[in-house]
Amino acid sequence: MSLGKLIGVALGPGDPELITLKGLKALQNADLIFYPASSIKEWKVISFSYDILKQLNVETESLPLVIPMTGKNREMHYQKAFDEIHEELKKGKNVAVVSEGDALFYSTFGYILKMAQEANVDCKVIPGIPAFIATGAEGEKPVTEGNQALKVIARPNGFEEIEEALKENQTLVVMKMSVLDNWSDFLEKQNRSFFYIERVGTPQQYSTSDVQDLKLRTIPYFSLIIIYA
Amino acid sequence: MSLGKLIGVALGPGDPELITLKGLKALQNADLIFYPASSIKEWKVISFSYDILKQLNVETESLPLVIPMTGKNREMHYQKAFDEIHEELKKGKNVAVVSEGDALFYSTFGYILKMAQEANVDCKVIPGIPAFIATGAEGEKPVTEGNQALKVIARPNGFEEIEEALKENQTLVVMKMSVLDNWSDFLEKQNRSFFYIERVGTPQQYSTSDVQDLKLRTIPYFSLIIIYA
Repeated sequence: MSLGKLIGVALGPGDPELITLKGLKALQNADLIFYPASSIKEWKVISFSYDILKQLNVETESLPLVIPMTGKNREMHYQKAFDEIHEELKKGKNVAVVSEGDALFYSTFGYILKMAQEANVDCKVIPGIPAFIATGAEGEKPVTEGNQALKVIARPNGFEEIEEALKENQTLVVMKMSVLDNWSDFLEKQNRSFFYIERVGTPQQYSTSDVQDLKLRTIPYFSLIIIYA
Repeated sequence: MSLGKLIGVALGPGDPELITLKGLKALQNADLIFYPASSIKEWKVISFSYDILKQLNVETESLPLVIPMTGKNREMHYQKAFDEIHEELKKGKNVAVVSEGDALFYSTFGYILKMAQEANVDCKVIPGIPAFIATGAEGEKPVTEGNQALKVIARPNGFEEIEEALKENQTLVVMKMSVLDNWSDFLEKQNRSFFYIERVGTPQQYSTSDVQDLKLRTIPYFSLIIIYA
């Protein structure tokens, strides 16, 4: 039997209607869909991708790929995930793997794709809207324009790294910002406008550009900030 | 009569199927669609947005907004474009303005939005996939992953600016790269892999990661390059 095809499908930032027409079609036409899940606890699957996927009412069978969010044993978890996918591809199935946001922008799918390419699997990727782009739309303000530069950093090591990036006259996006504490103290010292968002595109969405509001928040994993040039 | 609503709808990078479900619905439900056109010559409208739009078979009436791509008199052209839109909003029409790529990422719509907000128009923005994200999918390689940073620059003043950005260990995206000549000479000196693309998502798409191929190309306006970290 010939090997099935692997297709990476980006779901977009959270609002199920922000998937592309092409992405939705690919999910409908796949034989099987895998979605990354951070854990399965007492039969409850913790997966932001699945939260989006289930709202699309796609009839294709779907299964979780457990990939914990901790940095530990990352390679092993990716390898295990790819092995599960590979088993299905070997049965001749065309398999879709979904990602929240885009599929190749700070995404788990990038690691899966590399393993699939090394195993000579026929691959295709359907892009999607990254969270920071959807945040721009929610904030109703250009993320960047003219010849202004943009910098995106993820999982910053400390505020020094952010301060350094702010010295240049560019818009700065910080992803996985929850790795740092005391954002409100830091932002108070800066002379820049910002837009902070949690769980963009979901019913739990919360956003603010007021540092006083941020003082009271516990920043969750699905949050990001745009600090404007 | 009460003022109509303005909705910015991102069309995505070129492939008409890369519009979102939400964007398509908004176009179907609008009373009128405006699309930016760089010129109208002998009854021929030059508009990349319209090239995408017409493939979507939306029945809503559509009209061009002429905004030349030259830097000259930019403000005047935006103001004229907004005045045309405002006239229709005053008739109570709900007006969609489309953008190729995203609506607030190096887009004309950002300027229109600011004018509309100042005129107290009710606005909404539906995001879309920027060209560099679609380029990542075409190249089948992660744009960025882990805690790697990304920088995007547009209309660079010279190769010095690009060289400076490459000193940091980050992925670099250069938009409107056609403002500079001799890309192949520059890239030959760098020890970085890259992915160059023209007219992403259209039948005229061309891409390469080989500097020898680039030597022979005349770089068009709709092109960009990702230089990997």
